[in-house]
Amino acid sequence: MRSEPFDSLDRYLRERKERVDRALDGFLPGESRYPDPVFRSVRYSVFAGGKRLRPVLVIAAAEICGAKAEDVLPVACAIEMIHTYSLIHDDLPAMDDDDFRRGKPTNHRVFGEALAILAGDALLTEAFRLMTDRGAMRGVPPERLLDVAGEIAEAAGFSGMIAGQVVDIASEGKPPDGETLDFIHSRKTERMITVSLRAGAILAGAEAGALEALTGYGRRIGLAFQISDDILNVEGTAEALGKGTGSDAARKKLTYPALYGLESSKEKAGTLAGEAVRCLDRFGDEAQPLRALAGYIVERNN
Amino acid sequence: MRSEPFDSLDRYLRERKERVDRALDGFLPGESRYPDPVFRSVRYSVFAGGKRLRPVLVIAAAEICGAKAEDVLPVACAIEMIHTYSLIHDDLPAMDDDDFRRGKPTNHRVFGEALAILAGDALLTEAFRLMTDRGAMRGVPPERLLDVAGEIAEAAGFSGMIAGQVVDIASEGKPPDGETLDFIHSRKTERMITVSLRAGAILAGAEAGALEALTGYGRRIGLAFQISDDILNVEGTAEALGKGTGSDAARKKLTYPALYGLESSKEKAGTLAGEAVRCLDRFGDEAQPLRALAGYIVERNN
Repeated sequence: MRSEPFDSLDRYLRERKERVDRALDGFLPGESRYPDPVFRSVRYSVFAGGKRLRPVLVIAAAEICGAKAEDVLPVACAIEMIHTYSLIHDDLPAMDDDDFRRGKPTNHRVFGEALAILAGDALLTEAFRLMTDRGAMRGVPPERLLDVAGEIAEAAGFSGMIAGQVVDIASEGKPPDGETLDFIHSRKTERMITVSLRAGAILAGAEAGALEALTGYGRRIGLAFQISDDILNVEGTAEALGKGTGSDAARKKLTYPALYGLESSKEKAGTLAGEAVRCLDRFGDEAQPLRALAGYIVERNN
Repeated sequence: MRSEPFDSLDRYLRERKERVDRALDGFLPGESRYPDPVFRSVRYSVFAGGKRLRPVLVIAAAEICGAKAEDVLPVACAIEMIHTYSLIHDDLPAMDDDDFRRGKPTNHRVFGEALAILAGDALLTEAFRLMTDRGAMRGVPPERLLDVAGEIAEAAGFSGMIAGQVVDIASEGKPPDGETLDFIHSRKTERMITVSLRAGAILAGAEAGALEALTGYGRRIGLAFQISDDILNVEGTAEALGKGTGSDAARKKLTYPALYGLESSKEKAGTLAGEAVRCLDRFGDEAQPLRALAGYIVERNN
């Protein structure tokens, strides 16, 4: 895929997404394995129409650093499984208590709370099974696989995504506070986006400078992505988002627009996207997809 | 520790348990890391008085195969974290809805459902962070670390522990069925016990014959352990168990005593313990702790 010139972000995203979808379908067979209910619950959420942003970032970073998409697909899919698990658990009644996501009833609304909890647990566990599978990741030195699995666990764990969710829940209804908001955004969203880029680069054997550049890019688009999510929750249409809008405000959630206003938030997202693009200056045409993606992230409508 | 002659199972278990407890305390600092609530919730359940059977099995298998306890402590602790996560999630209202475990209120009764779900998620994630930490596991070839993490993920995942819990919940109140019971026992308990022994052996670089012997031992004590758990739920005292007895019967849970009667169940557990000991015939005195442990598992009162 690397050899074609980059001409359309839409096509680039669509092709990589199709590849990720096919690989996920293969990794989650759904039939013939016992017991059936948990597979149906897992597949329902994994194939509920996600954008596959994180796995596409793994692939894009790997391609920039000279590897091929197929070399990193298991790790790319593992990161999408972790993302899906986090959505299933976050939607639970004890957490955000959401009824819809991406235009469909949330997992626990369809399969019940027990299977939703177990589907999340299963996806998280399967992600690490896949990442540590030397057969699936042949050709990658084992040290790199360990480092990637460790970084992903760090980004998803105690001091990463879990910390973000804990503080997010604890801060609902509290007075707005910029430091807490930055903590939540960084842990809930930015770190998993940054580690997606790092994983692709590390698996491809990137040198330190390239890894640092992609990390800088990830930090900025990760934060920009969360700010634009907050903005869409205020301004987006329910149809485009597949879920109710205005839910953050109703719940008095701490968000960028709530704290800084819509205009400032848009400006901040735009500034971050510009900075992200400048992080890629050391790369040539091979980084065009990531440059275009930075703009897409702040201009998307879902 | 290997050099002392084996004279007392009590002392052997106590010394290894203390080592595991100290290591867990170091891996889960609990202070100084932000956010505090999830660490308190995690530590509450990790230090709620578990027997540390699984980590002791990792250490015992490693010692038999010529490694030292300290070489395998991170993986031993990771398996205990996975065990603890599974207990926290199994106790949730949407699952078994248990109020007490080991004589203390269950995690969600103290910290609420949201923090109980997140504490489980955090422990599962941290377990894989620890297992893939090349610094903590220095001296072990990276291929072995990957194989061990992969086997543990397989035992804990979709077709392992998760499958056991799914079928366990689905079978409540249904007509008794031996095949389903074997499936539940094997997936919920036996596989994690077997993989504990395999992990210790693989990390120590065991040859194929030793690995096979320890696997055979694990399968048998794993099943014997679950049968004796079922028996204790009928016969044990609430005081010794730290939770109500008779709960399986009240819930019409599928158990060994319910299907085959108490006497047959005790006989089966005893037979399995005997077979387990015979699996160790190729080893000498270094396997004395595991031989004694097989008897302890079927004779314990908690």
